[in-house]
Amino acid sequence: MSGKPYQWVDETVEEMGARFGIRATEKLLDEQTPYQHLEVWRTQHWGNLMRLDGVMMLSSLENFVYHEMMSHPALQTHAAPRHVVIIGGGDCGTLTEVLKHREVESVVQIDIDEAVTRAAERFFPELTAHNDDPRVDLRFEDGVAWMRNAPTASVDVIIVDSTDPIGPGTGLFGPDFLADCHRVLRDDGIMVGQSESPFYHMPLMIDYHRAMRDAGFAERRSLLFPQPVYPGGSITGTLARKTGSLDEIRPLAADVATRFYRSELHRGLLAIPPFMQEALGDV
Amino acid sequence: MSGKPYQWVDETVEEMGARFGIRATEKLLDEQTPYQHLEVWRTQHWGNLMRLDGVMMLSSLENFVYHEMMSHPALQTHAAPRHVVIIGGGDCGTLTEVLKHREVESVVQIDIDEAVTRAAERFFPELTAHNDDPRVDLRFEDGVAWMRNAPTASVDVIIVDSTDPIGPGTGLFGPDFLADCHRVLRDDGIMVGQSESPFYHMPLMIDYHRAMRDAGFAERRSLLFPQPVYPGGSITGTLARKTGSLDEIRPLAADVATRFYRSELHRGLLAIPPFMQEALGDV
Repeated sequence: MSGKPYQWVDETVEEMGARFGIRATEKLLDEQTPYQHLEVWRTQHWGNLMRLDGVMMLSSLENFVYHEMMSHPALQTHAAPRHVVIIGGGDCGTLTEVLKHREVESVVQIDIDEAVTRAAERFFPELTAHNDDPRVDLRFEDGVAWMRNAPTASVDVIIVDSTDPIGPGTGLFGPDFLADCHRVLRDDGIMVGQSESPFYHMPLMIDYHRAMRDAGFAERRSLLFPQPVYPGGSITGTLARKTGSLDEIRPLAADVATRFYRSELHRGLLAIPPFMQEALGDV
Repeated sequence: MSGKPYQWVDETVEEMGARFGIRATEKLLDEQTPYQHLEVWRTQHWGNLMRLDGVMMLSSLENFVYHEMMSHPALQTHAAPRHVVIIGGGDCGTLTEVLKHREVESVVQIDIDEAVTRAAERFFPELTAHNDDPRVDLRFEDGVAWMRNAPTASVDVIIVDSTDPIGPGTGLFGPDFLADCHRVLRDDGIMVGQSESPFYHMPLMIDYHRAMRDAGFAERRSLLFPQPVYPGGSITGTLARKTGSLDEIRPLAADVATRFYRSELHRGLLAIPPFMQEALGDV
């Protein structure tokens, strides 16, 4: 389609014997940060593409699905989400969605790697345009340590917008971190975490559900949604609640504009497909 | 993961500058049929994989999603689906799902290429196990011509389980075929067609909706679902109804076992995401 020279930017998932590639025309950034290898590519048809340690994180074209699905379901399940914490999320796309909710009074975002946010400011400016909102507190430090030190029962919604459970994201899937999330949430608190694909990484999903259960979360539900640049083309966000049901959701306020999320879809996705239910079993 | 030698079986989507590949360990079938190039590969982690003209059609691992979503939504929308026609569908996976419905009295399947069904019998036997059901009439002929010659108002549900709109599948997306479908359906009849991905092929979806509208279908709705081997990892089935609503659906009978489909999910997917609504606009 383009006459320009290009190269394939590929991501291989060894354990599934699968790869996905996008044609890039230019490498815009290549940086070894203190935590990971950060790249941004200009692509033929996907806008800009960010990778961390060789794993595709987001493209301009389709990141809206992920960012909406990591924010609105959790916020619409909470009766009055005032204090929100985002762990990871350095590209600030999830933050942008959270800020659309007027009832949110504060958002603390803790990403260990400031370089990701600086790259997003340059190459995904539409995602960082609201970072100066007075409700926002951006911190570049270790999210696991932050959660360990956070006051008990002080937060309404925790969003874990993490990389995969390798590299700097590893601790965010573990029992200690999840136990801290449970403690830091208020009694009606809700968390949601990026939890991979049931087609590619069901064992990981089972471990995650088990860790959430062991941390004391009464109910857990993994919402499956399409995400073209992620392995297998879809991914889950797993919601967990300390008390009460995940099935009661508030209608979306009229001034929260979305491109993917709808309340009816949210309700539909809460009905977990039988193949996932079966694998997750009694966890 | 496997010590065996492998090779990548890749599919490139030129217009999106994207490719998806699966590691195969053995080519099980390579046949130039009168209509298309048919291959079956043994893969490392996906079971067997069928391609037609280089395009991935199905894998053992994840075809259940597609076959359930091309059958149950249409059948659950119809009040009493007795007579069903499948155009294409040569692998017989959709047929298998249709046959789970006891109220179905006859299924005529018309696929132009008998070689696809013979390959499915060898390499996807779980999908062809019910082909000798007395309700089934398997025909290997031109689906466009069959529909042109079919009696008016004789069918309850038409399922167009086609390849992409290139090669032998082209006519199945056109206005003449859709007008014939409209004529052949009873007044309360419903059709569903494979209609690609909104992330990859929105112009095609717009054309398809327009052609369905012009053929006289009162209501049309594209249900988006994950499908790992298809471009972008998700695909749509577009439902169209001659009269009445697509929103009223019957609960699934207890003896219809599914791995992906659930009534609640079906209802949720009927709420089309805003980015698709916007693109489809007034079509």
